[in-house]
Amino acid sequence: MKKIINKPENYVDEMLEGLYAAHPDYITYTADDLRCLVTSNKVAGKVGIVTGGGSGHLPLFLGYVGKGMLDGCCVGGVFQSPSPEQVFNVTKEVDDGAGVLYIYGNYNGDILNFDMGAEMADFEEDIRVETVVAGEDVASAAPAGPGEPNHRRGVAGIVFVYKCAGAAAAQMKDLDEVKRIAEKAAANVRTMGVALTPCTIPEVGKPGFTIADDEMAIGMGIHGEAGIRNGKIEPADAIVDEMLEKILPDIPYVKGDEVAVMVNGLGATPLDEQYIVTRHIDKRLKEEGIKVHRYYVGEFATAMEMAGFSISLFKLDDELKELLDAPAATPFFKQL
Amino acid sequence: MKKIINKPENYVDEMLEGLYAAHPDYITYTADDLRCLVTSNKVAGKVGIVTGGGSGHLPLFLGYVGKGMLDGCCVGGVFQSPSPEQVFNVTKEVDDGAGVLYIYGNYNGDILNFDMGAEMADFEEDIRVETVVAGEDVASAAPAGPGEPNHRRGVAGIVFVYKCAGAAAAQMKDLDEVKRIAEKAAANVRTMGVALTPCTIPEVGKPGFTIADDEMAIGMGIHGEAGIRNGKIEPADAIVDEMLEKILPDIPYVKGDEVAVMVNGLGATPLDEQYIVTRHIDKRLKEEGIKVHRYYVGEFATAMEMAGFSISLFKLDDELKELLDAPAATPFFKQL
Repeated sequence: MKKIINKPENYVDEMLEGLYAAHPDYITYTADDLRCLVTSNKVAGKVGIVTGGGSGHLPLFLGYVGKGMLDGCCVGGVFQSPSPEQVFNVTKEVDDGAGVLYIYGNYNGDILNFDMGAEMADFEEDIRVETVVAGEDVASAAPAGPGEPNHRRGVAGIVFVYKCAGAAAAQMKDLDEVKRIAEKAAANVRTMGVALTPCTIPEVGKPGFTIADDEMAIGMGIHGEAGIRNGKIEPADAIVDEMLEKILPDIPYVKGDEVAVMVNGLGATPLDEQYIVTRHIDKRLKEEGIKVHRYYVGEFATAMEMAGFSISLFKLDDELKELLDAPAATPFFKQL
Repeated sequence: MKKIINKPENYVDEMLEGLYAAHPDYITYTADDLRCLVTSNKVAGKVGIVTGGGSGHLPLFLGYVGKGMLDGCCVGGVFQSPSPEQVFNVTKEVDDGAGVLYIYGNYNGDILNFDMGAEMADFEEDIRVETVVAGEDVASAAPAGPGEPNHRRGVAGIVFVYKCAGAAAAQMKDLDEVKRIAEKAAANVRTMGVALTPCTIPEVGKPGFTIADDEMAIGMGIHGEAGIRNGKIEPADAIVDEMLEKILPDIPYVKGDEVAVMVNGLGATPLDEQYIVTRHIDKRLKEEGIKVHRYYVGEFATAMEMAGFSISLFKLDDELKELLDAPAATPFFKQL
């Protein structure tokens, strides 16, 4: 395990201490618990938006707490869910009478603990909480039919949901309206990833799986969940083609659509490679007659030192476009 | 070689095509040459600032072309200098009568070719060019005595020089004044790095050196130049201590000083680890009585998939602080 760390058991809390030292203008914590992260810029009367999930995915999840996006984040251990108490404490702190919206990824532990936190907030503090669970990884399950539960994992595309819901809340829309927008955004995002190397949970000390030196794992999740297939590494353009073949027909994204595109490095993949990928996505979407409104290229949702990347497409209409374009400022996301 | 690329010989140009596709609001190119990168937002009558150097270091060098920072970048092959013709073409494009300042890192090939480009600009177009060469890696050479040439390599700290000079130019200061500020900023920055893994030039296909599985290279440069020592990996706090022991006495940075701090990931090192490093820097500087005005944590100057990080300290006075704090917006650097 080649990591720049101290004791593995202190990994998350020391990372958080560094974050609070570096970004006091954006973030602080509540309930004397480093893992109950909240905004330093609470806005009176605004709907609060709370997220959370396991550590090891920076900038996800906490990196989007700030102006125009989220108000709080419940920070779990590496790849572990935060506790119901943490959810409750963050909820209490960010609520200012307008209620709280939870937006988090589709993982069982998170659902369980956020639901328990919401119950505590309702029972003990009479805070109204609504929830939107984001799950947009096309490689992780078949699409849900009408009325069926969504079994897809939430990955990098959740950032688009944060952005639009956050902008709506910043416009002082009410909880029902912010929830409607979050649901609409979540319904219009699709993501797929590819991994070239595994990653190591510090307290475990070795990777939970391997990917051969000349292989890649198409469709792998950000905790190393199995994807669609493992195979020889192919040229960047061929990898992008295979991913778009799966993403494009899913909503579907079709000629005349307008989208935002996120190319997300999983942790160890250089920006150079992410832009080589961007080049081919741009070419392919032009061929398909799909207009790109905005690109986001960089690290948005990682798996520590995993090499690989994901592509997210986000289908826009006028309402989502305006919300996406609104200014925002967090430690990891700045848009003028 | 585990990279997401197409043909290695197309690495740089395909990366650039991706960049132009993603960021047309910030950057374009001149002279029909993808590697002659210039701003999309030329400001009439402003001093132009041009940088350049080898590829493989994103966001360096081109990532800082934009509003309030740089106006052009001459893009070389991976770890190679741009040509004099590229320097000349970029210079011609960004000059608007107020002259051009070159700011680049202290590497012989870059010095040679930028000097030739400056001569062409003077001779053929009567453009006044001034040059500031940044070299602040304390591990790369002894400090220059009075009147002696500086043999230190330029690394991540150059971003502070870009930022202050760029802000001065945006305030429409003249070439002498922008140069004075760039020189002052360069004189107040010191950097040191540590590498955990090597990186691979795509056209070479294998790393030029190795670092043993349990070892680190303290003081290594961003092209893999030898550092101070190789040794067993130590805890993060011990690594930071060793680096600060070398950086702090160099200017020196002393009690009562105010600094900006950059923690720079070299490419493959997760943000989590960078914040664990930030935590200990914060603790140590507090103990030394040195006040931190601002932290910059993330990737600013990389070596593709090299794992490791660097620390830069930038000593501030009121003038530099105001320039550092001025707003800027480039594809890779946004400050409100």
